[in-house]
Amino acid sequence: MAVPPVPLDPTRTTTVSELRVRFCETDLMGIVHHGSYLVYFETGRVEWLRRRGVTYADWATTGLHLPVIEAHVSYKTPSRFDDVLEVETTLAELRSASLRFAYSIRRGDTTIADGWTRLACIDSSHKLLRLPEYVRDVLLAEER
Amino acid sequence: MAVPPVPLDPTRTTTVSELRVRFCETDLMGIVHHGSYLVYFETGRVEWLRRRGVTYADWATTGLHLPVIEAHVSYKTPSRFDDVLEVETTLAELRSASLRFAYSIRRGDTTIADGWTRLACIDSSHKLLRLPEYVRDVLLAEER
Amino acid sequence: MAVPPVPLDPTRTTTVSELRVRFCETDLMGIVHHGSYLVYFETGRVEWLRRRGVTYADWATTGLHLPVIEAHVSYKTPSRFDDVLEVETTLAELRSASLRFAYSIRRGDTTIADGWTRLACIDSSHKLLRLPEYVRDVLLAEER
Amino acid sequence: MAVPPVPLDPTRTTTVSELRVRFCETDLMGIVHHGSYLVYFETGRVEWLRRRGVTYADWATTGLHLPVIEAHVSYKTPSRFDDVLEVETTLAELRSASLRFAYSIRRGDTTIADGWTRLACIDSSHKLLRLPEYVRDVLLAEER
Repeated sequence: MAVPPVPLDPTRTTTVSELRVRFCETDLMGIVHHGSYLVYFETGRVEWLRRRGVTYADWATTGLHLPVIEAHVSYKTPSRFDDVLEVETTLAELRSASLRFAYSIRRGDTTIADGWTRLACIDSSHKLLRLPEYVRDVLLAEER
Repeated sequence: MAVPPVPLDPTRTTTVSELRVRFCETDLMGIVHHGSYLVYFETGRVEWLRRRGVTYADWATTGLHLPVIEAHVSYKTPSRFDDVLEVETTLAELRSASLRFAYSIRRGDTTIADGWTRLACIDSSHKLLRLPEYVRDVLLAEER
Repeated sequence: MAVPPVPLDPTRTTTVSELRVRFCETDLMGIVHHGSYLVYFETGRVEWLRRRGVTYADWATTGLHLPVIEAHVSYKTPSRFDDVLEVETTLAELRSASLRFAYSIRRGDTTIADGWTRLACIDSSHKLLRLPEYVRDVLLAEER
Repeated sequence: MAVPPVPLDPTRTTTVSELRVRFCETDLMGIVHHGSYLVYFETGRVEWLRRRGVTYADWATTGLHLPVIEAHVSYKTPSRFDDVLEVETTLAELRSASLRFAYSIRRGDTTIADGWTRLACIDSSHKLLRLPEYVRDVLLAEER
């Protein structure tokens, strides 16, 4: 029987961060290159963890990694150089050895892109790990 | 009633190209950063068009663009610096104003990643266009 | 006779901005890839202009561009994922159709990298332009 | 007294490789972003080593790294999406713990950019190393 996902408290799962589009992130269409949004999702995820007391870099140096194993992006409206974008990052699903974050990128009231990434928990030799308890505690913690 | 997709001849829809992983495409995990695969898909798509006689750059200068409006990637096995990767690109769906390419990235017999991107056809002012006939002809053409 | 450079008021030429190293900017050595520093210089330069009332994007839409025509970087100390870096950007030289910015990137008291970029002033067809007076005024203005 | 550089045989120091400009390497000016050239230099350098029997990746896994400690680029002519560029890479200077490669990037007879990078030899803990003899042998070898 499959283990059901861990129940999540929706008042704790979301963090909003901000970034400004860089010149080099645009392409010859004059808009942000579609590949840049995976990077924006990543900055949102890193900030989500930081607001819960974790520097992802610390985990990485202890040999715990959370690589992306699946990613999805829907592009709604082009964004442009120098736009200030809001990245809303939400922990959407927590399982024993994987988790899923959902993202919504907005410029003011306009949705620019949304999507999600599924991450697995692995060690330095790329072997799948059950999420350690200290990681799970962070994932269930409130934003500080 | 929705217009059905254009029927595709499966003997004509696939192109295989090759690339070598660059140093800068890796990250501190020692593997290719997950964002790089959208770029690899893009090189596969550009090559797919070139083998059917089209330089995407030509279309771009005439004001026709095919931006990615949706993207999906599944990461199967890490790849590393200097790996030679095969990108198999397949036109998977052709509609009146959009199309979908599917991709499989392999290193020898190992699947590294697969996924797909949906593209819309737009003009220089980012307005949706019905795919012009000369574009559709290219998309239905055989690899040269 | 060569036109001498425009004299600069050293109390007005420097702006300090901040950025955080992104995961994707590292490479398999575990440190920031050397190519990322040109991007960091660029963010410093864009911020330098913004603090003087200019959105570089505005100039770009009027057809005025300031492409980099020469760049130099000295790498002093590796920096790592999640480091907060200070980018000190200084207008170092102003000539009739070109200018030079110098940069110093620091993490606390440690210099990570320094360097400079020379920019030319061109129009949309990539023809060299004498710096228009409104641009020169901005370049000589005080940080707001 | 400073150790003089190792004498180089100019018939052995140069390798020419080729690349095609990717869509994502352009920016809103419609040309290749200036930061991309450091990546092109890097691909030239990696290919230079491969033609002398070395996979840079092998050295990296043994803990020997050759990070860039200084870089210089002169931009001569814009290049564009889909351009096929020739990267001429030349070992220009070989010292006991560092080396310098020079680069010229061309599209047909047109020089697009040239420059150089100085590399140091370090181990996995980022400590400076005297270039091991097996590395020096490769650097003095003929292109295969």
